[in-house]
Amino acid sequence: MTAKDGLPSWNDGEAKRSILDFVGRVTRHGGADFVPPAERIATFDNDGTLWCEQPFQVQVFFLVDRVKQLAAKDPGLKERHPFKAVLEHDLKTLHSLGKQALMELFAATHAGMRMEGFDDIARTWFASAKHPKFGRLFKQMTYQPQVELLALLRDNGFKTYIVSGGGIDLIRAFAEEAYGIPREQVIGSSAKLRFEAQGGRTTLMKLGELNSFDDRDAKPQNIGLHIGRRPLLAFGNSDGDLAMLRYTKTGPGLRLALLIHHDDAEREVAYDREFKLSPLAEALDKAEEYGVTVVSMKRDWNSVFGETARPAGKAHAATPAAR
Amino acid sequence: MTAKDGLPSWNDGEAKRSILDFVGRVTRHGGADFVPPAERIATFDNDGTLWCEQPFQVQVFFLVDRVKQLAAKDPGLKERHPFKAVLEHDLKTLHSLGKQALMELFAATHAGMRMEGFDDIARTWFASAKHPKFGRLFKQMTYQPQVELLALLRDNGFKTYIVSGGGIDLIRAFAEEAYGIPREQVIGSSAKLRFEAQGGRTTLMKLGELNSFDDRDAKPQNIGLHIGRRPLLAFGNSDGDLAMLRYTKTGPGLRLALLIHHDDAEREVAYDREFKLSPLAEALDKAEEYGVTVVSMKRDWNSVFGETARPAGKAHAATPAAR
Repeated sequence: MTAKDGLPSWNDGEAKRSILDFVGRVTRHGGADFVPPAERIATFDNDGTLWCEQPFQVQVFFLVDRVKQLAAKDPGLKERHPFKAVLEHDLKTLHSLGKQALMELFAATHAGMRMEGFDDIARTWFASAKHPKFGRLFKQMTYQPQVELLALLRDNGFKTYIVSGGGIDLIRAFAEEAYGIPREQVIGSSAKLRFEAQGGRTTLMKLGELNSFDDRDAKPQNIGLHIGRRPLLAFGNSDGDLAMLRYTKTGPGLRLALLIHHDDAEREVAYDREFKLSPLAEALDKAEEYGVTVVSMKRDWNSVFGETARPAGKAHAATPAAR
Repeated sequence: MTAKDGLPSWNDGEAKRSILDFVGRVTRHGGADFVPPAERIATFDNDGTLWCEQPFQVQVFFLVDRVKQLAAKDPGLKERHPFKAVLEHDLKTLHSLGKQALMELFAATHAGMRMEGFDDIARTWFASAKHPKFGRLFKQMTYQPQVELLALLRDNGFKTYIVSGGGIDLIRAFAEEAYGIPREQVIGSSAKLRFEAQGGRTTLMKLGELNSFDDRDAKPQNIGLHIGRRPLLAFGNSDGDLAMLRYTKTGPGLRLALLIHHDDAEREVAYDREFKLSPLAEALDKAEEYGVTVVSMKRDWNSVFGETARPAGKAHAATPAAR
């Protein structure tokens, strides 16, 4: 009844048991809870759910480095807000400039270029950019227990998706390597695209205009657009994921919705309500009412970034089979 | 070098040879044109490419039947345009009412309901609705040679997608059964969705507001959003597909772009430039310049709807493995 244990970095406990029990039930042929493979959809938030989002989301580090690159080519930017504020780490000014300034920053750093050109820039950045506190490459800031869970789900016929508030093209540049999740199974915030054809060349231009900010209600809405099925399992870590968790959990039959609680100051960072960029408050308060399983990083994970994982778990994660 | 012949309904000729040669090359390990499985994306238009779109697209038949259903419940509709015009097959009035009327028709027949509720309506309709001329179920109006091609591509590691101007949720209601293409690999025209949560229930409402009309330039743009990779192979049949065909063919390395020419009045319908709902003119004129392979239904297919297909081909199509 219970799925084979492919989760060495998870401690035995309620969270791990609920996952293995769930996977065992929905995959048991002839069982009351059996779900055909085609309907085994699992959706994961990315920042704070699959990798570290502290002290800022990785995208913020990327954006700052992009502004530095742009300012090196065009020194005038150093004197002009919002770029000046970014370069001087002047959060107060940045905040006072409001939403329009944020859009301008995204347009300058993430748009006005070919989709494939952005992918090159992102891959180059990921190849060397490191986390300031942990000192390892950002693309290695993934949570080992989650990499194991993704692989376990795929081994059991699930298709694994990312549904993130982060930029879709930035995630696509590393998700295949880091998680075994192919580009077409990444849903995220996106800019509008424009098809351009000139002679024998065609391209998709990333425009400085928002297509979708994939947070809160937009998460289930984009799941409807991209996948067209209600997920069987969803995993998040903030109030921005609550709509997706509820959408998942309220579907017919057995469903599993999980929420990471970052309560491990020693191995990562302890935070929830006070993290302004992505607070966890309502989801924590309502978890029990909505049937959401809370995962304590401190209690439920014996390894966070693979530091204490047994070799078997590491080997498993090194070759994630894409589904 | 050449892929194994899984195309019994295709006549030997340039089109079939170009497909088998292409698939053979991109899948040959160590060959100059080898492409890793993750990048083997094939995109197909639906109406007129995978199934019959004459005398109207299947969606039009569905819409008319939906208006009849609605008028049976609310007889007032019979006296009110644009519903009156639809029920009286008054194309002239319908045309004069313009785009706004069309949007009103779609909102009334395709929106204002839960996504899952629409799916039920569409499945019920597909279970019995028949083509007026051919007398077979609409969902059996698929082209046998294309069902074989989809299976051949999947057997060779391709992920097969539909990229259609038709409504995404209508196609999703039959594509898995008819083509072996899962819901998440269907891209189409879409309405905006709204997430609604009430107590222990959540749903996605289809709104009467267009999200994307997936035709012409929107096809490569939506490929960028949903897939994030340039297709390796694309197949269309009208000017609405030309941007997708060019986007595909102009990518680096070996690519294949194909265009069906409906020139078989005996087994289907002969049409191209004069079909107002989805003309084929520019794409036909520019096919050679753009390197697009034209497939003649008359010359290249020995079976259209499976009428003369050998049993082997039929058996193959009966169990399409989803990818």
